[in-house]
Amino acid sequence: MTKNIAVVAVGQTKFGELWEHSLRDIVIDAGNSCFNDANTQMSGFERKIIDNLVVGNMGGGSFVNQGHLGPLVSSALGLGNIPAVRCEGACASSALAFRHALHTMQAGKSHVSMVLGVEKMTDVDPSRALNILMEAGDFESESMAGLTFAGLYALMARKHMHDFGTTREQLAMISVTNHKNGKQNPLAQFRSETTVDTILKSSMIADPLALMDCSPITDGGAAIILMTEDAVKKYAIKNPVWIAASACGTDNIIYHQRKSLTELQATLSAMKQIKEQGISEKDINFLEVHDCFSINELVALEDLGFCKKGQGGKFVENNEIALNGSIPTNTTGGLKSIGHPVGATGARQIVDAAKQLRGDSINQLKTPQNGLCLNIGGIGSTAVIHVLSKNKPDVR
Amino acid sequence: MTKNIAVVAVGQTKFGELWEHSLRDIVIDAGNSCFNDANTQMSGFERKIIDNLVVGNMGGGSFVNQGHLGPLVSSALGLGNIPAVRCEGACASSALAFRHALHTMQAGKSHVSMVLGVEKMTDVDPSRALNILMEAGDFESESMAGLTFAGLYALMARKHMHDFGTTREQLAMISVTNHKNGKQNPLAQFRSETTVDTILKSSMIADPLALMDCSPITDGGAAIILMTEDAVKKYAIKNPVWIAASACGTDNIIYHQRKSLTELQATLSAMKQIKEQGISEKDINFLEVHDCFSINELVALEDLGFCKKGQGGKFVENNEIALNGSIPTNTTGGLKSIGHPVGATGARQIVDAAKQLRGDSINQLKTPQNGLCLNIGGIGSTAVIHVLSKNKPDVR
Repeated sequence: MTKNIAVVAVGQTKFGELWEHSLRDIVIDAGNSCFNDANTQMSGFERKIIDNLVVGNMGGGSFVNQGHLGPLVSSALGLGNIPAVRCEGACASSALAFRHALHTMQAGKSHVSMVLGVEKMTDVDPSRALNILMEAGDFESESMAGLTFAGLYALMARKHMHDFGTTREQLAMISVTNHKNGKQNPLAQFRSETTVDTILKSSMIADPLALMDCSPITDGGAAIILMTEDAVKKYAIKNPVWIAASACGTDNIIYHQRKSLTELQATLSAMKQIKEQGISEKDINFLEVHDCFSINELVALEDLGFCKKGQGGKFVENNEIALNGSIPTNTTGGLKSIGHPVGATGARQIVDAAKQLRGDSINQLKTPQNGLCLNIGGIGSTAVIHVLSKNKPDVR
Repeated sequence: MTKNIAVVAVGQTKFGELWEHSLRDIVIDAGNSCFNDANTQMSGFERKIIDNLVVGNMGGGSFVNQGHLGPLVSSALGLGNIPAVRCEGACASSALAFRHALHTMQAGKSHVSMVLGVEKMTDVDPSRALNILMEAGDFESESMAGLTFAGLYALMARKHMHDFGTTREQLAMISVTNHKNGKQNPLAQFRSETTVDTILKSSMIADPLALMDCSPITDGGAAIILMTEDAVKKYAIKNPVWIAASACGTDNIIYHQRKSLTELQATLSAMKQIKEQGISEKDINFLEVHDCFSINELVALEDLGFCKKGQGGKFVENNEIALNGSIPTNTTGGLKSIGHPVGATGARQIVDAAKQLRGDSINQLKTPQNGLCLNIGGIGSTAVIHVLSKNKPDVR
């Protein structure tokens, strides 16, 4: 049996402040969006072919008093008594859910799996939301000390500036690019272009990160259907997008105990695993990276090997990440423009990467062959990478 | 490559009100207990051979403001930058974590995995704890209506009494048996024997369930190391306990929407999957079942096929679940006596089942060959079954 697994259908809700939508509404909208896509990819799709469900969600218990999303999603979508489980790894929750489904299928325990990432963040006031997000950091040494994630990433940005001369302008250019790409995205939370000047003048949140360096608080969901190679054949899928590689790395959850503040060992470890699976950064035509804060996209470009450590600022300044640059990044708007419903973002990255490879992205690149998605949890305590490919790999 | 996977080392903390232990302390104690056991099962154990970690936890975010337990546990135990993820399915979280590790290994992506279940419940006051536990139910239709899990299971008990003539005395005999077994367990929260009369006279919590029908609020952790068959050979493990079958079923999270209130479709679905893997109830020598409330153990005996639907009361009355009965159940005390740290219970069940099969249980049965663990989430919205075996199966 081959271990080749493909993404065969994708969907997502509008991302934004969905005041009139409950968590369950978002689940149903994301699911239906994916089922509709499945109907375009095969004839006679029925949801009963789905035999396994993995949900990605960070904080349903804290945000809306709702945990146990495996059976909630399964019953809301009418999937029956199938195996269902939730994976959590902070903002990397739904990439971890995707990875769980992948392993279950590669183990031969599922032929058709669904992955659904969801978060409902706006039912609590923003200060409470920041506290809930800090569940992703270390409570004893970070949350209790008053740190927020903007504060943690500001430490990373300040250290990067100090060590490598990175500038606020260079960081701002990341948000400018993401907003430019997101302007075309009808499902994005913010569809306006912005400028370096506007970003520099926006309210300071945690020096040196200003408001427009930060991704927003967002409600939203994204869903994916996966099939084994046998099922892809059986159901005559039109446009399968193959999973060429999967990796996960972790690091000390306590940021100040790490050996470097500007290099994420979790990403380095995950990228090393990707290389061991035969894929290097040279094979990649576009990126989905985790710009929860502008500095995190810059550090990702370095840690993934697209430029040398410390050269991220220059790399961005040279427009290498633009749609017509050497490595188009966050082609649909990234977390900054699309929004960041934390447990849904990893799935949304895969949705957008799959569309790019199928040829139906809102900012379609010319014949991309491979795309890499990097989903980060906390301040880089978890890093999950998936490489998607237009071409069938030979995964063992 | 064979897909045989074995439990090679197990450990757990004392279960109870661990006022002087933080979540991290419990993680470290559970991990060290497992590492110590690993040292008795092989020579030269080093934790660096562990290449994958899956954590089971229900409500760290709500109980102690701490999510993102993958990297927290990995760093607390010195496991390095390995892949790590948390699984959640309410009180079935750590059986789901175990199942995730199993699939990752069967997919060929890990040779030596660790599963750790943990819950720290006593840092909030009991009324808040009940609200947090209701995250496992449906918020919109159950929690908002004022239901607690004692209330939900009371509905199940009342309906079972109505339909089948089950008595409070029969339910009480389940707690009597669990307390009798748990008296020998040095790690149990309650080590006192009790009587039917004491149980009937204990405070009514949710009619017909009295205090002594209910498992307690507990802190605790349990940990397991798994190996592939190749690794078992490589490290010359003394007493591997093999995983003969794994299954997960789910049901509508909304209890009143189900077709039956006294039969859990999730358990029926999971047991059907177990039978498809070639194992029936006749092969099982002892059980670990989920007696969060006495009625749930009774319903489990029926749904797993050890007696007919409605006959659970009589079955218990005939002492069939005693250590010398036809199917010894919860031989070390069950959730009622050992305690129920919700995200750790599924792992603790596997720890105790593995010890029973290795021959070093505190209430050792004579040469048991196969044990079945049933871990339930919510009011049976999730059911996870694992069958452990002394004998090497041929899992495909």
